[in-house]
Amino acid sequence: MPKVRKANERNALASGQISNGLQIKGRLWIENEGRTYLSWGRIILLERIGEYGSVSAAAKSMQMSFAHAWHLVEDMNALAPEPLVEKQVGGRRGGGAWLTEAGKRAIHDFLQLVERFQGWIEHESI
Amino acid sequence: MPKVRKANERNALASGQISNGLQIKGRLWIENEGRTYLSWGRIILLERIGEYGSVSAAAKSMQMSFAHAWHLVEDMNALAPEPLVEKQVGGRRGGGAWLTEAGKRAIHDFLQLVERFQGWIEHESI
Repeated sequence: MPKVRKANERNALASGQISNGLQIKGRLWIENEGRTYLSWGRIILLERIGEYGSVSAAAKSMQMSFAHAWHLVEDMNALAPEPLVEKQVGGRRGGGAWLTEAGKRAIHDFLQLVERFQGWIEHESI
Repeated sequence: MPKVRKANERNALASGQISNGLQIKGRLWIENEGRTYLSWGRIILLERIGEYGSVSAAAKSMQMSFAHAWHLVEDMNALAPEPLVEKQVGGRRGGGAWLTEAGKRAIHDFLQLVERFQGWIEHESI
């Protein structure tokens, strides 16, 4: 798993060099037929689920409501070619959640894309 | 002047090809010491000021309040190396506004940057 990022980082996924005090910033996201599928926040949520083993713990770590996190997971699972997160409801330990192989791959691919974006933006200027 | 863009276009400045139904979207903006200086919306506002010759007409064409547009113009002028918009208050025709050379250059440079970004994103995949 990649290193977990700060949940409250600014929305910018990439930043260019500063020249004349000005800096280019940018962000990327992935849509499926016009609906947001993966974004910076969603990727952090997936990473946290992988770390904590539950949607509620992941949500709490991001100061996100459980309902919102749950909604995001359902939304990603519905938009993904195959589910990214599997969940077990209830049970003695109150259920749990884990990343599928497709989930791990989605994180990896998104972060790779962001890295290439960062490389591009660093060589840009205005 | 470049062709005026629709004010209600989505925030995405660039879109990649669709593969497996998925599409990469991205947006860029320019900051000056951590504060937003130029963005898609701000560039459209500048273009409209250049077209209509007044901040209020430009704001109206974007369904933006005059107060908000005025604030954005003041903010850009303060963050720019030199003012982008000059304004004349009052007078028989109720004042007017026009782009300075720096303002025209800012629009041009931002749109060129966006074009290069579009080129980059089109060759990316996930």
